[in-house]
Amino acid sequence: MIIVMDPNAPQAAIDRVVGEIEKMGGAAHLSRGKFRTVIGAVGEESDIDQNHLASLDGVEKVVPIMKPYKLASREFHEDDSVVEIGGGKTPKISVGGAHAACIAGPCAVENEQMLYKIARHVRDGGATILRGGVYKPRTSPYSFQGLGLQALKWMRACGDELTMPICVEVMDTRQVEEMEKYVDCFQIGARNMQNFDLLREVGKTRKAVLLKRGLSASVKEWLMSAEYVLSQGNRGVILCERGIKTFEDSIRYTLDVTSIPVLKQWSHLPIIVDPSHAAGKRDYVGALAMAGMAAGAHGVIVEVHYCPSEAQCDGPQALLPETFKELMGQLKQIAAVCKKEFAEVGEAVAT
Amino acid sequence: MIIVMDPNAPQAAIDRVVGEIEKMGGAAHLSRGKFRTVIGAVGEESDIDQNHLASLDGVEKVVPIMKPYKLASREFHEDDSVVEIGGGKTPKISVGGAHAACIAGPCAVENEQMLYKIARHVRDGGATILRGGVYKPRTSPYSFQGLGLQALKWMRACGDELTMPICVEVMDTRQVEEMEKYVDCFQIGARNMQNFDLLREVGKTRKAVLLKRGLSASVKEWLMSAEYVLSQGNRGVILCERGIKTFEDSIRYTLDVTSIPVLKQWSHLPIIVDPSHAAGKRDYVGALAMAGMAAGAHGVIVEVHYCPSEAQCDGPQALLPETFKELMGQLKQIAAVCKKEFAEVGEAVAT
Amino acid sequence: MIIVMDPNAPQAAIDRVVGEIEKMGGAAHLSRGKFRTVIGAVGEESDIDQNHLASLDGVEKVVPIMKPYKLASREFHEDDSVVEIGGGKTPKISVGGAHAACIAGPCAVENEQMLYKIARHVRDGGATILRGGVYKPRTSPYSFQGLGLQALKWMRACGDELTMPICVEVMDTRQVEEMEKYVDCFQIGARNMQNFDLLREVGKTRKAVLLKRGLSASVKEWLMSAEYVLSQGNRGVILCERGIKTFEDSIRYTLDVTSIPVLKQWSHLPIIVDPSHAAGKRDYVGALAMAGMAAGAHGVIVEVHYCPSEAQCDGPQALLPETFKELMGQLKQIAAVCKKEFAEVGEAVAT
Amino acid sequence: MIIVMDPNAPQAAIDRVVGEIEKMGGAAHLSRGKFRTVIGAVGEESDIDQNHLASLDGVEKVVPIMKPYKLASREFHEDDSVVEIGGGKTPKISVGGAHAACIAGPCAVENEQMLYKIARHVRDGGATILRGGVYKPRTSPYSFQGLGLQALKWMRACGDELTMPICVEVMDTRQVEEMEKYVDCFQIGARNMQNFDLLREVGKTRKAVLLKRGLSASVKEWLMSAEYVLSQGNRGVILCERGIKTFEDSIRYTLDVTSIPVLKQWSHLPIIVDPSHAAGKRDYVGALAMAGMAAGAHGVIVEVHYCPSEAQCDGPQALLPETFKELMGQLKQIAAVCKKEFAEVGEAVAT
Repeated sequence: MIIVMDPNAPQAAIDRVVGEIEKMGGAAHLSRGKFRTVIGAVGEESDIDQNHLASLDGVEKVVPIMKPYKLASREFHEDDSVVEIGGGKTPKISVGGAHAACIAGPCAVENEQMLYKIARHVRDGGATILRGGVYKPRTSPYSFQGLGLQALKWMRACGDELTMPICVEVMDTRQVEEMEKYVDCFQIGARNMQNFDLLREVGKTRKAVLLKRGLSASVKEWLMSAEYVLSQGNRGVILCERGIKTFEDSIRYTLDVTSIPVLKQWSHLPIIVDPSHAAGKRDYVGALAMAGMAAGAHGVIVEVHYCPSEAQCDGPQALLPETFKELMGQLKQIAAVCKKEFAEVGEAVAT
Repeated sequence: MIIVMDPNAPQAAIDRVVGEIEKMGGAAHLSRGKFRTVIGAVGEESDIDQNHLASLDGVEKVVPIMKPYKLASREFHEDDSVVEIGGGKTPKISVGGAHAACIAGPCAVENEQMLYKIARHVRDGGATILRGGVYKPRTSPYSFQGLGLQALKWMRACGDELTMPICVEVMDTRQVEEMEKYVDCFQIGARNMQNFDLLREVGKTRKAVLLKRGLSASVKEWLMSAEYVLSQGNRGVILCERGIKTFEDSIRYTLDVTSIPVLKQWSHLPIIVDPSHAAGKRDYVGALAMAGMAAGAHGVIVEVHYCPSEAQCDGPQALLPETFKELMGQLKQIAAVCKKEFAEVGEAVAT
Repeated sequence: MIIVMDPNAPQAAIDRVVGEIEKMGGAAHLSRGKFRTVIGAVGEESDIDQNHLASLDGVEKVVPIMKPYKLASREFHEDDSVVEIGGGKTPKISVGGAHAACIAGPCAVENEQMLYKIARHVRDGGATILRGGVYKPRTSPYSFQGLGLQALKWMRACGDELTMPICVEVMDTRQVEEMEKYVDCFQIGARNMQNFDLLREVGKTRKAVLLKRGLSASVKEWLMSAEYVLSQGNRGVILCERGIKTFEDSIRYTLDVTSIPVLKQWSHLPIIVDPSHAAGKRDYVGALAMAGMAAGAHGVIVEVHYCPSEAQCDGPQALLPETFKELMGQLKQIAAVCKKEFAEVGEAVAT
Repeated sequence: MIIVMDPNAPQAAIDRVVGEIEKMGGAAHLSRGKFRTVIGAVGEESDIDQNHLASLDGVEKVVPIMKPYKLASREFHEDDSVVEIGGGKTPKISVGGAHAACIAGPCAVENEQMLYKIARHVRDGGATILRGGVYKPRTSPYSFQGLGLQALKWMRACGDELTMPICVEVMDTRQVEEMEKYVDCFQIGARNMQNFDLLREVGKTRKAVLLKRGLSASVKEWLMSAEYVLSQGNRGVILCERGIKTFEDSIRYTLDVTSIPVLKQWSHLPIIVDPSHAAGKRDYVGALAMAGMAAGAHGVIVEVHYCPSEAQCDGPQALLPETFKELMGQLKQIAAVCKKEFAEVGEAVAT
């Protein structure tokens, strides 16, 4: 940690900072420049309280050197983590390292029949994990909020029948216990990325956690949210880039593929992209999925509907089954260039 | 609602859109331009499903004309709302219209003694509502997370003793029931602005709700979150601008005072500013508080500490008691220019 | 164009708007909703002055429906434009449609020898157009500002010798006339994207123009800048996405690949990506180049240096020659998936 | 400057960095932590090439400690600078320190009569400097581009007659020489903030320079642009905050009043705000002007028109003369709270 002193900080202020660093178990190295003194605090950075040092008189700013997360960092776990989703009646699907996965399905589960129909379509197109919302985070209290537990049971039955593990969004700490009985992977939505109590609760389970990036979360904040889950003992975290807010208004969100090489350098966790929510419009979904894979992602999560104009939410961004299938063909080629491989559906059938 | 068709949308697509609008109870007005057809959908905009229309073939985009919120809108309630905080052993403090209020106190309640000491300081400086965190949303799982229920009880006792209503942050739906017994005002933090289940739960109580703006929430999304609370029957919503994320890295957040005149045009709800969290550094707090009041805010929420270097969180942004007092003097002058008045502490003592 | 009236706009205000639209040669279609009246202005949208209508009493907002650019639009030119760079002693390299191109070279031309050395490296690696800065836009007046005319002459000679057309940045209207004698492609830097006089001047030449996106320019503003060049009669505009400013501070800029499918829908102009300036760090350049091509770009512009630590500017982002060569191999594979082809250097030798 | 090494940088890489720092005339201080080595480079920071150090093997990142600007910094000039605008037939108006100024007038000079009419209105309302555009930076090549030299002459004559110094935007290096004969203050528009050649040219004159902030420029980049002007010997730089781009779409730009206290800490230069261009809509102009003054600005620049619906550009944001006059009354009160004073028009009449 580097402590930059004000240009006219008196010696007493410098001494105080040095004393505080030593009190916290660190060692202080002074560099006196022409204009100001800079103090390097060496030791376990987590023992040294940045906030406290920044509060002391004469301190201009404190620059942390170490990353604030540990379990999520590449230093902690040098190799790429591979997270497994599924088990029981479905195969385990690996995500991470050389393993890419496609998660697909409807935005929201609207009834049993449409769920099965779409699930068959996406399985046929090459998806190996089924997604479907049962509790929907809607910006309007007047919009469709999801069918809840009944839809969750359909998801489980459908996943089992088609041998696809299921990924479902959780929104409230009070849902975790019941949902854990059904899902293979909890999804944490972008708006809940810093719902710290929810992160802690899913961290206590042993199901995989798909952690979407907040709409304006920095890569560092995102990894800190992953750290909340990891710190509870759950190592199955998969990051999901889904677009960030920028000034650009021609598209719903800006898919930040730039975060992918950064994340891969800083962390061992797998990362996938969600082109559907970024695009908000089906015409753009394919290009964004391709870009994400080419940037090094370990897969995609995509919304598909056989009749988007009937969808109760996010119809405009849902791919048609045939477009989805075609896209998967291209994504497999991109994955090959990037030395990754999508699980084959055939392989994925449990015995 | 305006539906813009693709330049080469066939007549059948136009007919389908018209048909769907009529099915939803609306009327469709066509404008055929040289290059494309534009369809105006007239009727209760809430009955017309934008999403559904956007999914139809040949539709380029849908432009909503009406605001998506109702209870939060100026159309619904033409005069400024005045929200009252407190009652029981404390006076009721009004916020909204010509009534400005200052909420102040420590970032987190660290022990009983510091709470009382700071509470006396802020009361002496001119604050009429006491703030203090007992559950702290921290980006790191390894940081101090607050003292919970014990601290909440201290807050209540301290508020009662000093006749100041109290405002405390709630983070989890599971905390609402217990907290309701103690607080006068629930605070919803920026990171929970779209924690929809939490919004609904505080909406079911009849305590005031201070709703902070999410770090990248648009004014419209913010009002939609207010709508969640209002739609449950709780009309005591106060909005709090606390800084948004931009590319600027010289300060923690950009206090968006620009949102204030917009909000006052669109909504009747009171709005206050939080200069402490925006600034992140005490040197800048005063200027931001002044700017917020001058832009038309109904008050401020400020963090104060008599010894910031001992604070367990956010010490660098805490004002010293004497600086706070001086600032309040200036804020009262600004309020007078803007035809608002801060409640006097003297008046505020309950009998 | 859609004119949304205030909820309580009087009939006279509505009549005035209708009158003004008709005065401008348009026709007005009224939709009277429950709360407000919406007026559709039909006619040549360019004849109808949005600004003027927005200034009228009782107008809440004006929503344009047509794009404000013409020559840059897909409606004006349905097929992808193919821009040719070069001629004379070098071959003509095509960019656009199925033709992808790689532009590479040093950030700045520092001396004759380094230029030739790097040029040979990038030609060997697969680049067919040579880049190199001779006037450098530097944020600090104390930084190296480029070698000017002398360096430009070296660029020309080197390009001719290696049969590579050259692309050089122009910064000032006063440079255009002299530079036109030497360059095959003018580069307009991000910070000059809205230097309208400069756009007009290069628009008067008949050399290709590589137009970088401003650091916070929307896609629409970018196309309007292209329109400035096109409106002077120069049809050789190539767009270049080079990263935008966001709140994210882990990387220099966020390469907005999301803009690529949008641009391809709205415009016929070719688009390439600049991963070097977005990344700011060589480790991330490859992933961003790959993502850009996979999103549908028509090529890349990349900085290469055989000894980055000796470079006078932007050394940290320069690729080493061997990394560049390897990357080009992968980019060719991605291009094939996207049905594009990079020009072969062999083919490119003029006779 | 702090150089952070990679966790596994070998000793040779550390030695190389130390050697390079010493070669540049600096001294290197090593702090070896548990995970990595951090090197402090002490000496004239401007002598130490950050870019070069960042290019060396084993360097993770370089953190500059000193500000990159000099002449613009508070360290260079401890007291607030006061810039004088005018002289000759008009009085000199001071801006900076305790002196606030109001610059007002039409967006664009459309004809002689409207100019005089508006000039009289704004003088009557309390403005002491006259603004008016003669070259207009328009995003569309098809929009009104200004009347050029003829309008400039009207501005000069009008300013002389009403004893108001004039402030006029310059767009092109080729305009500087001629304009210098007429203007008292050059305005550099937001889109030209990093038009470095233009900055240099106005820096060579001895007229005041109103430097608008770029739409996505950081405070640091803005001060670097000021440094370009200052480095040519022109000390008359006034900064102008005019709104930045954010994700918020309810208003044209977000007026970043947060930049004001930051700028005042970092720099001695005066700073004013432009609420008209930020708001884009007259309803919001007053609140933003008030907020800017309360945050500590040294004045405002405002657009006024007696008949906004006739304005050829930016009519919707122009204040009516009576609203302007009323606003000035409030701004004077805010200025008094902030210990600043607007020049009286009466005083300002030259003899």
